[in-house]
Amino acid sequence: MTAGRSRERSTMPVYDDPIGGVRLDAGGLLRWTTMLVERLGAPADIAADVADLLIASDLRGIASHGTARLPQYVKLAEARVMDPAARPVLESGKRALSLFDARNGFGHHAGRVAVDHAIERAGENGVGIAVVRNSNHYGIAGWYAMRAAASGMIGMSLTNTSPLVAPTRARVGMLGTNPIAVAAPAGKHDMLVLDMATSTIPRGRIEVAARRGETLPVGWAIDADGSPATTPERALAGSLQPLGGEESTAGYKGYGLALVVELLTGILAGAAFGPNIIGLFSTEGKSDLGQFYMAIDPAAIGDRDVFVARLEQLLDQLAAAPLIPDAPGPVLYPGQPEAERARRQQRDGIVIDREHYDSLLSLAERFRIDLPDAL
Amino acid sequence: MTAGRSRERSTMPVYDDPIGGVRLDAGGLLRWTTMLVERLGAPADIAADVADLLIASDLRGIASHGTARLPQYVKLAEARVMDPAARPVLESGKRALSLFDARNGFGHHAGRVAVDHAIERAGENGVGIAVVRNSNHYGIAGWYAMRAAASGMIGMSLTNTSPLVAPTRARVGMLGTNPIAVAAPAGKHDMLVLDMATSTIPRGRIEVAARRGETLPVGWAIDADGSPATTPERALAGSLQPLGGEESTAGYKGYGLALVVELLTGILAGAAFGPNIIGLFSTEGKSDLGQFYMAIDPAAIGDRDVFVARLEQLLDQLAAAPLIPDAPGPVLYPGQPEAERARRQQRDGIVIDREHYDSLLSLAERFRIDLPDAL
Repeated sequence: MTAGRSRERSTMPVYDDPIGGVRLDAGGLLRWTTMLVERLGAPADIAADVADLLIASDLRGIASHGTARLPQYVKLAEARVMDPAARPVLESGKRALSLFDARNGFGHHAGRVAVDHAIERAGENGVGIAVVRNSNHYGIAGWYAMRAAASGMIGMSLTNTSPLVAPTRARVGMLGTNPIAVAAPAGKHDMLVLDMATSTIPRGRIEVAARRGETLPVGWAIDADGSPATTPERALAGSLQPLGGEESTAGYKGYGLALVVELLTGILAGAAFGPNIIGLFSTEGKSDLGQFYMAIDPAAIGDRDVFVARLEQLLDQLAAAPLIPDAPGPVLYPGQPEAERARRQQRDGIVIDREHYDSLLSLAERFRIDLPDAL
Repeated sequence: MTAGRSRERSTMPVYDDPIGGVRLDAGGLLRWTTMLVERLGAPADIAADVADLLIASDLRGIASHGTARLPQYVKLAEARVMDPAARPVLESGKRALSLFDARNGFGHHAGRVAVDHAIERAGENGVGIAVVRNSNHYGIAGWYAMRAAASGMIGMSLTNTSPLVAPTRARVGMLGTNPIAVAAPAGKHDMLVLDMATSTIPRGRIEVAARRGETLPVGWAIDADGSPATTPERALAGSLQPLGGEESTAGYKGYGLALVVELLTGILAGAAFGPNIIGLFSTEGKSDLGQFYMAIDPAAIGDRDVFVARLEQLLDQLAAAPLIPDAPGPVLYPGQPEAERARRQQRDGIVIDREHYDSLLSLAERFRIDLPDAL
């Protein structure tokens, strides 16, 4: 770790538009996705929630959580491992904390219902938390936090996921990439949106490295024997490492954060947890994921505009910070590159790679719903 | 980053007993600390809170946040930069969210009052959050989270601190080491207690490296020019790096977490924030720190015993995980080594290093309060 001090040039994971990609109108893709999800058996409002989430993800450049997931949702629905028509039910709670049973429906819909409930309760009590059990993959965690931020509140969203991450000292995956998302309104900066896996990198980043023939830095993954994985192939046969990487670089902190996410989702909500979670896209059994949504209303303790102005000032100060010698750009705030990407793609169309496009085309043919023409 | 793949042997920061240290009875040190803080002008109940926090920190082996801080508190009180007698005042709020003004008193006391308030509100509403402005250094963040866990709840505690951490791409410190603490009752495992700075390591760890003549791994700190600091001397003249380290190893995630802590403390509570915070132990002006306390009551949505049993089972599963080849021990859960240390030192006495002991002796002489005899 003391050798090789030259800085890696790799930057925040804002992916370039795919080379040779296909450009689709965002509105057209949204309507097509809604129709497709309805065809799986989802009522119109549920399909609209799923489509909103998937297109928001594509717009923000997080292709791994957008319409590229549709073939997997189709597979789960057709295997009857997930119920596309299920509606969440409020099971128990007090004024500021509620538990929902998602009834094994789309995580996106259960999440939209739960975060709206949390926002309403926050308006009444200052804070609202809704936890959900018996849920499924819910797309990007940030979407739910942003929904609270759009209501002028601080939003938080957490989910547990398939056990791909090895706790510090462990040789096998025991916890998910368990993301943490937090958002807040930021005035002229629009929104602060932190949406991060608690692993160093997502599994998809290793697949990208495999396609590019890259070697891997220490701290991304371990191989099947538990040693640092030096190649994507060894990493894909092993486990991801928690944020911080090795024990010497405080990987136990990322492990601790993943465990706290598990505590607030699977454990608190009474869902499956940790190593007991069946793969999210496996047809072996239902996922029974746990999710957590919180809204905090700054207006309950002061003036909302003053709160926003203070956050705006902090982001101004960060953006003006003097830079390290080899900085690839200015200091960014979380969510800034994704928001720029979303604005551009809303205007010019969403660019997806050829493989992704072909998978949508094949769904379009099978379900006889015409995909919008490429731009 | 691709060179030097051999694993560093350094482990989680549970420090060995100091060599040539002095052993003091925990109860005796608690009584002595209480008397000393009273002598600064604090009423008995406030002094008891401060002493509880400091001794808990010493017991857990976190010497940097325990009685070693007393000379600095004395200095702040004597300079009238902090008011040892001040009591927090509830300013505004709704059922589940409250804002306190700490009136520039001891952070420990304001924190104890605020977390007890959050616990009470959580009992009524399922969740309680109390934020505090105009506060000071409050010791270990974990203590407040543990207080909620001792009431059978999930506890969380956050504080902002002096701007020692450089955001990703920035050359200078703009945010604090902004800790995140979360605790929960865990049955036979007692408690899960995550208490972590959002920087890779605390500044004190670099001071330790300086005393030991160590070089530093990439990801701990940058020097004054913004390049990775290879020596403790260069690091101490520069800034700490956020958890994750360099941009290539996802340091922007640690930066994002530090910013979220700032959002929930300084920004939400209306305290000083980010680069505007005056050093915590500076006599130039008051610190005006912001702090955040949350309690979540699992009994509001289900059976508390079932919740605890589920967490117990997860920790059992983690402890039984197969290990990496060079593991220095089994998989631990957050707070496990600190709890073992605390039990041992409660029984056998607290071991502090000679420099720390001398500083307490000198306070004992100055205030004419006899320090307990070394064991």
